[in-house]
Amino acid sequence: MAKSPIIGIMGPGEGAIADWMLFAEKLGSAIAREGLTLLTGGRPVGVMEAALKGCRTSGGTTICVLPGKDKADASKYCDQVIPTGMGNGRNLINILSSDLLVFVGIGPGTISEFGLGLKEKKPMILGPGAQKLWNLAKEMEIPLVVFRTDDIPEILEIIRRNM
Amino acid sequence: MAKSPIIGIMGPGEGAIADWMLFAEKLGSAIAREGLTLLTGGRPVGVMEAALKGCRTSGGTTICVLPGKDKADASKYCDQVIPTGMGNGRNLINILSSDLLVFVGIGPGTISEFGLGLKEKKPMILGPGAQKLWNLAKEMEIPLVVFRTDDIPEILEIIRRNM
Amino acid sequence: MAKSPIIGIMGPGEGAIADWMLFAEKLGSAIAREGLTLLTGGRPVGVMEAALKGCRTSGGTTICVLPGKDKADASKYCDQVIPTGMGNGRNLINILSSDLLVFVGIGPGTISEFGLGLKEKKPMILGPGAQKLWNLAKEMEIPLVVFRTDDIPEILEIIRRNM
Amino acid sequence: MAKSPIIGIMGPGEGAIADWMLFAEKLGSAIAREGLTLLTGGRPVGVMEAALKGCRTSGGTTICVLPGKDKADASKYCDQVIPTGMGNGRNLINILSSDLLVFVGIGPGTISEFGLGLKEKKPMILGPGAQKLWNLAKEMEIPLVVFRTDDIPEILEIIRRNM
Repeated sequence: MAKSPIIGIMGPGEGAIADWMLFAEKLGSAIAREGLTLLTGGRPVGVMEAALKGCRTSGGTTICVLPGKDKADASKYCDQVIPTGMGNGRNLINILSSDLLVFVGIGPGTISEFGLGLKEKKPMILGPGAQKLWNLAKEMEIPLVVFRTDDIPEILEIIRRNM
Repeated sequence: MAKSPIIGIMGPGEGAIADWMLFAEKLGSAIAREGLTLLTGGRPVGVMEAALKGCRTSGGTTICVLPGKDKADASKYCDQVIPTGMGNGRNLINILSSDLLVFVGIGPGTISEFGLGLKEKKPMILGPGAQKLWNLAKEMEIPLVVFRTDDIPEILEIIRRNM
Repeated sequence: MAKSPIIGIMGPGEGAIADWMLFAEKLGSAIAREGLTLLTGGRPVGVMEAALKGCRTSGGTTICVLPGKDKADASKYCDQVIPTGMGNGRNLINILSSDLLVFVGIGPGTISEFGLGLKEKKPMILGPGAQKLWNLAKEMEIPLVVFRTDDIPEILEIIRRNM
Repeated sequence: MAKSPIIGIMGPGEGAIADWMLFAEKLGSAIAREGLTLLTGGRPVGVMEAALKGCRTSGGTTICVLPGKDKADASKYCDQVIPTGMGNGRNLINILSSDLLVFVGIGPGTISEFGLGLKEKKPMILGPGAQKLWNLAKEMEIPLVVFRTDDIPEILEIIRRNM
């Protein structure tokens, strides 16, 4: 059996708006149906919670890398809980553990994760709400593997091509 | 579905002796048959590799928290690979992610994990080769949840009582 | 004696252009003359090296938080070297250790540090080359303490008001 | 000017006894008179606080690597405060940043630091209260640079020979 490919969904917690959460839930569900594993920051709020819910209610497997030390702080939709006790330092572990990242929405933590994803040369897809990161990426003169789309079938197609 | 209880097996990599690896493989297998998830430091050597092999070949699920950044450095018996890029700083994540820890053998990293387990008040079982940690624990005047046994059925019984 | 206020200068290493390095060196020098301590990521290249050189050659004190484990990898202009062995995970320590941050230029690591600075609500000044981060900050609907200027006397004035 | 050699003093916080604190204060003072820089875990309690007080009141320089995110949690005897937000994960940074380590007393965190020091092959001196770590080290069949003494002049002599 091969190591499971892991798709990370990154997006705001408390600062998430309804459209982003709706999209994240659908995307989580699509990831489950595709037989992929979902990774998020694991807190029971915003884009993280929505994506986890979508994945788990469609029968998928979820990994949650928590900022705190206590597993009880994780979303109820987490299968495997990895508490780090490192606060936002755990953002790098989210990036390194994901074979591909999808960004839904934008917030301070999301920006840090996008920067780390560029630094670690991870394939990244910018979904709804993450357009500002696209503008930032385009203008930087560095080689990168960044895609921009709000279309879930297209996201799945990019994932398949990059695994 | 409840979050999976995770049993961490901690022990030396390169410095492991054959007895420790044999025990770790049997224990990994027992953990799989008990329906528990196994976590180790994930490198393809020593106690880590043996425990992962035992668990996977008995149909269990394994989580590997790597010191490096590259998933390719993980044991082939890892299901979920969490690279941290933090070197031995990842030892704390091993401790925090495990609901109970079993120590097999002793080495520098193992000592650091035992200290962190005491600090984080995790239930810990000291197996073969880890007697020196038992002496250290007994003499310290702090409350702790540390057990000492080389018997796998007794280890499973302690796990059941502490989950 | 009060704890030393620490000013962090964040900017690219290998990807830095000459203008950014020239500015960083002047700013490092101004920080030294102001009696403040300088913190950078400590590698002997780009904005980090230039800022450290400016500070040290003007008699200031420098702290370097390295990604690697080896002090020998630090710039020769570092006074206090803090190796972390955490790779880009050390970016959070740069942010938390600085009482105020100045960004000079832009690159993947710089973006991650800007996101973490927003998250940790640190006062941040965006200098030459960091305009794209200003556009990103302005459009986000979150409370923030971010300034935009290329003028060193104005930077010193903002530092004084925010210490 | 050369990079400052840093001596780390490791020991318990809340669990420290009076003898250990008295020794740590004298040792901190001796380190200051020797012109060396002192590093501790920076919390205002136990061996850390005593060593910092001894060093600062004798005119020395102190670096404090905090577990939390807030500089206000540091001892008042800290010159340079490095908050990490990593909890006990910062123990590795203590080890990597110190050119030589002296252990005073014993506790869970101290054990973890001793294990990490062995792992990272740092020269380590075991002072009063740390005898149990000496027994552990002696019995392990690994190459190590560990000394055992309660005598401050001898500690300074070992430091000089190992810098």
